[in-house]
Amino acid sequence: MSVREAPASTERLEHETPSAIRRGVLMPIGGAEDKFDDKLILATFAQLAGGKAARVVIVPTASSIETAGLRYKAIFLGMEVESAEVVYIGSRDDANSEHVIDHVKDATGIFLTGGNQMRLSAMIGGTRFEQVVRDANERGVIVAGTSAGASILSAHMVALGASGGTPKLRMAQMVAGFGLISNVIIDQHFRQRDRIGRLLSLVASNPGLLGLGIDEDTAVIIDEHGVIEVIGRHSVTIVDGSEIFSDIFQVKAYGEITVSNARLHLLTPGRRFDMRTRSLVAG
Amino acid sequence: MSVREAPASTERLEHETPSAIRRGVLMPIGGAEDKFDDKLILATFAQLAGGKAARVVIVPTASSIETAGLRYKAIFLGMEVESAEVVYIGSRDDANSEHVIDHVKDATGIFLTGGNQMRLSAMIGGTRFEQVVRDANERGVIVAGTSAGASILSAHMVALGASGGTPKLRMAQMVAGFGLISNVIIDQHFRQRDRIGRLLSLVASNPGLLGLGIDEDTAVIIDEHGVIEVIGRHSVTIVDGSEIFSDIFQVKAYGEITVSNARLHLLTPGRRFDMRTRSLVAG
Repeated sequence: MSVREAPASTERLEHETPSAIRRGVLMPIGGAEDKFDDKLILATFAQLAGGKAARVVIVPTASSIETAGLRYKAIFLGMEVESAEVVYIGSRDDANSEHVIDHVKDATGIFLTGGNQMRLSAMIGGTRFEQVVRDANERGVIVAGTSAGASILSAHMVALGASGGTPKLRMAQMVAGFGLISNVIIDQHFRQRDRIGRLLSLVASNPGLLGLGIDEDTAVIIDEHGVIEVIGRHSVTIVDGSEIFSDIFQVKAYGEITVSNARLHLLTPGRRFDMRTRSLVAG
Repeated sequence: MSVREAPASTERLEHETPSAIRRGVLMPIGGAEDKFDDKLILATFAQLAGGKAARVVIVPTASSIETAGLRYKAIFLGMEVESAEVVYIGSRDDANSEHVIDHVKDATGIFLTGGNQMRLSAMIGGTRFEQVVRDANERGVIVAGTSAGASILSAHMVALGASGGTPKLRMAQMVAGFGLISNVIIDQHFRQRDRIGRLLSLVASNPGLLGLGIDEDTAVIIDEHGVIEVIGRHSVTIVDGSEIFSDIFQVKAYGEITVSNARLHLLTPGRRFDMRTRSLVAG
């Protein structure tokens, strides 16, 4: 495989990753992951959480459906993890309460369901629960999230937005996420909902963010060094704006944005990518 | 003066501040600071940058007006600083170039002018210049910004938005800023442009962010412990959403948002506020 050479360090910024402060794996999932066949993504999560010794905590807050967490509980128990518990957080008081915090203390894996990511940011942002999830990840606990649960993992989160291939101003709304990882923006249901336009517009607005667009039934495993690996059925689209030119600061209202020199990577399952050097890992 | 008691640490989150990784003062200014009379805010910046020993670097990138930086240069030279230089960054190539980086190496104070904050995020976000500004602040160099230059300082930045007192969904667009400070969102021209609605909507979307609304000709000095002091002519509005209730995740389109239990602080010049405990400092 031909791989672009690593750039000289004096010429190109070594992109800051949270590797220095994070030890646990992150696993954003693009939504609609297989729950019936080999359940590859969910099984990989359970394995990384400890396999038969895994103690999984499921957070269904993003969903307004009462049973959202129970479905995952049944799946993980079917994989013979040691335990799988659903923790219910329906308000900021819940997210600050001792019994909710206690649930996470012994977890070896935390799983955030899909739904509406604004429920997560509005109810859990800035609470003790957010802090214990961050602390858990820092001491090595894997944190996974699907769809809304994937978006919330990063510091900057897509909250709302429009579909379409052309980047436009005001195409997507960002909100602060949980900040388990900085310097990336995670989008999901990516090609299924045609979200390349909004990801380009977000990267153009600040190319310090690396765009990760994750397809359905596809996930990325982000290790402690900021190296990611794609698993699942489809692909992950990475938008690197390091050398981008855009006129986003001159566009008015909801106008279309010119984007030039965005570097695009489409990674199929098994591919690995180093977010620090923003390049494919050989082999 | 009556001050709310510090809450017990087990009951209330000690809000994370970047104090652990930052040593230099930050000074966001609400725009339209006095440039003719006593120039209190600009003189305070020059003083904190070293007074007669200050080596000031002015970054006019936010402005599309060629002379924006020169005006500040004349003002700072009039205050008898040792040097005041304007560094021109009009593209991402500029922001990665050695001669631009060199300008900052000996700076004792960095000043970002007003204009359009998307010019700053789009041209400088993720570049070497952003990194050297962050490094400079970490080793003790004061970084100040007015208007757009104030907004860009935080990790989450208001990029675009509407005026008005009622918070609404999609009222403001956030973009990633330089991240010299986390967990706050800085708004400027605050009461002059009636921006309380948008600040409330942003805090409601993730109450982990403390809202700072800075009036014109007013500034806050943020020390290395996350304690702020107000200076200038008008006030600073702080929105603390720790105990907020909102229905932001149920609102559709551009609907109005219910916000309850937002804690508001209006701080006049001379007042000090501890962002870690989110409370007024006595005395």
